[in-house]
Amino acid sequence: MPGQKPIKVALLGCGTVGTEVVRLLTDQAADLTARVGAPVELAGIAVRKPNKHREVPAALLTTDADALVESDVDVVVEVVGGIEPARTWLVKALAAGKSVVTANKALLAEHSGELFQAADASGADLYFEAAVAGAIPLLRPLRESLAGDRITRVMGIVNGTTNFILSGMDSTGASYAETLEEATRLGYAEADPTADVDGYDAASKAAILASLAFHSRVTAADVHREGIASVSAADIAAAKALGRTVKLLAICERVTGAADEQAGAGNGAGESISVRVHPAMIPRTHPLASVHGAFNAVFVEADAAGEMMFYGQGAGGAPTASAVVGDLVAVARNRVVSGRGPRESAYAALPVRPMGQAPTRYHISLDVADRPGVLSQVAAVFAEHDVSIAAVRQEGRVDDASLVIVTHAATDAALRSTVDKIGGLPAVREVVSVMRVEGEE
Amino acid sequence: MPGQKPIKVALLGCGTVGTEVVRLLTDQAADLTARVGAPVELAGIAVRKPNKHREVPAALLTTDADALVESDVDVVVEVVGGIEPARTWLVKALAAGKSVVTANKALLAEHSGELFQAADASGADLYFEAAVAGAIPLLRPLRESLAGDRITRVMGIVNGTTNFILSGMDSTGASYAETLEEATRLGYAEADPTADVDGYDAASKAAILASLAFHSRVTAADVHREGIASVSAADIAAAKALGRTVKLLAICERVTGAADEQAGAGNGAGESISVRVHPAMIPRTHPLASVHGAFNAVFVEADAAGEMMFYGQGAGGAPTASAVVGDLVAVARNRVVSGRGPRESAYAALPVRPMGQAPTRYHISLDVADRPGVLSQVAAVFAEHDVSIAAVRQEGRVDDASLVIVTHAATDAALRSTVDKIGGLPAVREVVSVMRVEGEE
Repeated sequence: MPGQKPIKVALLGCGTVGTEVVRLLTDQAADLTARVGAPVELAGIAVRKPNKHREVPAALLTTDADALVESDVDVVVEVVGGIEPARTWLVKALAAGKSVVTANKALLAEHSGELFQAADASGADLYFEAAVAGAIPLLRPLRESLAGDRITRVMGIVNGTTNFILSGMDSTGASYAETLEEATRLGYAEADPTADVDGYDAASKAAILASLAFHSRVTAADVHREGIASVSAADIAAAKALGRTVKLLAICERVTGAADEQAGAGNGAGESISVRVHPAMIPRTHPLASVHGAFNAVFVEADAAGEMMFYGQGAGGAPTASAVVGDLVAVARNRVVSGRGPRESAYAALPVRPMGQAPTRYHISLDVADRPGVLSQVAAVFAEHDVSIAAVRQEGRVDDASLVIVTHAATDAALRSTVDKIGGLPAVREVVSVMRVEGEE
Repeated sequence: MPGQKPIKVALLGCGTVGTEVVRLLTDQAADLTARVGAPVELAGIAVRKPNKHREVPAALLTTDADALVESDVDVVVEVVGGIEPARTWLVKALAAGKSVVTANKALLAEHSGELFQAADASGADLYFEAAVAGAIPLLRPLRESLAGDRITRVMGIVNGTTNFILSGMDSTGASYAETLEEATRLGYAEADPTADVDGYDAASKAAILASLAFHSRVTAADVHREGIASVSAADIAAAKALGRTVKLLAICERVTGAADEQAGAGNGAGESISVRVHPAMIPRTHPLASVHGAFNAVFVEADAAGEMMFYGQGAGGAPTASAVVGDLVAVARNRVVSGRGPRESAYAALPVRPMGQAPTRYHISLDVADRPGVLSQVAAVFAEHDVSIAAVRQEGRVDDASLVIVTHAATDAALRSTVDKIGGLPAVREVVSVMRVEGEE
């Protein structure tokens, strides 16, 4: 494109992802020019310690991110992470009409409203494919391809560390602690694994997915979050015995009056959504069950399109950089043709339902005394709480028995109370495993 | 959006897909208005026999498609199929600056160049997500999300009928003829199944996928095509014995000098692509192996993003309509914001390599006389053709033996000659099964 003005790009951050972004911009320069319709020119790279970045052109490095954002760049790419100072930089960039590409899930899960407002006010683009499920093209399909459909559920494995640990526990039978240690040793878990194992990372992603799927503004604080630290070898074994496996799932679900009625919570409330992250048993035949190790996958259900799954690498420098540069091509092309990408779509403004009122299903595995009447006592507690039982399996042993119950959908609060009360029955020796069940009707 | 001018839509065709498009536009009207930023108004529906379409508003029906295309509509949605008159209508619409959404794979696989040129000349959009893999958002990721990456391979199950038949043969061990009969009875195969079973449908889709993945203009005529009619129960059994399964694959592959060298065809030629549709054995552990029945899935490999898979319903009225309406939202929004979507990207213009020169791998299963020297005779034929052997399995039986050979990559022509010559060896009683192997290194 001779004569075509280049699109100038500021890169904020140059860690694993940033380095790969620079490499792609360099290696693919000719291709990118053809795809964008103008050269894409890296104007500067803001880092804290320039002498630590020998793999990128020294002339581009600067420690003054503010000045770089304020310079005459067209696009700001942010791969620093964390809320501040990323938020200040990006709001400033968007307000000045510069398009933004970011991989920052925490920031989007907290402040997407503010960022989108700044983008709307100036007509700039805000793209963030890399923020959820790394390289898997997922947000663009949700924002665009399925825009003519009604999404009913998004359910995904969006954290590689926890999936690596749960896959490991499933294949070896080892405990959570042992498997976490192994994951840390192999570099699949950080020295401080809190953000991953306690579900914070997945909760940010769930908030972003729910916002897009249901056209409503959902923040990380709206997401019910349970991590995997309490998943025991007994839980994994109980799942296996029933042809299931345990995954940490990010679940975004449309809850309608019909679902309420089924769960015995028909309170006439309008449509709402449930957004949650917790470990759950899924059938081994479910497409998500075969997502092993550090891979990510997201299962989407929509009224017309039916069931879909998106699978790929959820993290890592090169995969994340691929998503960042894909977005960069889109916003750059939008500038060349004076177009713009999708804005925030929050018109539906569906309320997020508290976890206690979300319809869920439980698997409960008990050690009980092997004497007549135990099952009827246990069943009475379910009936009392209006929880209906889908399946029961009782197996006698020497002097006690194992009792496994899977419920139909009920409110999470009713299920919790049921479990609490059952745990107190004299005939129940031990509550071996309690876990939610997903991915089956 | 009070006062916002509606986007007027002409619908050409009202079969299974068209009827569902009308339903979505009606049921989701408020949502679509919010997403597009203006009401989406169906201006007319062109059909051949208006009295056969009682499920859509009679006032919208017309038999004069030409007049409808020439009226003051903004977008033309085509779900008629076939080359003519669809081609004439769409070229006319694009030339007049109307955006086009089409599900017409045959037309795109033949005439995408002409359509894109008309779109470019007037600045109109041409979207066709529904043309490949129905509801699965696949083309948008290829055209947009992965625009910053270098795709090396696209390999997919893109025809539901043949996948239903091959899945059935795999699970029952029945012959092709029996299983096709069953598929026809159940409505999974058309009365004349030629387009599906002979691979024409998959070849059109392969041409579209290759064009997008490799930024080159590929037509159906460039695609090497083999159907599934010759897949025997013996092939299926041979695959099973080796932990593999047989799928009809659409394969679009970048062939570099390195691959050539490995396949013994290093002729110094530049980069090219191989685009082909044929049955192949894949490992049962490959993500595509668990795609059963009428589902579709496409596996994509890119330099930075790594491996990805897109899975969902490949056909059917509602899923296809979901993809059509998703595109309609995109082109309508582009009109509201005066933007436009991606143009044809054919700048790479990579040549399509003839099948004989494509690097492939073969599985060959033979019945041989159980006497010394047979393996060495067979191996000599491979050596003669410069084909190297990856694995051999020989099993003695009463008076003959079974010999299974899997090769390394070689040119398809060398592999064919090898098989021909082996079939003529006196010690070889029968060539039981010959099939290409994909999805493993």
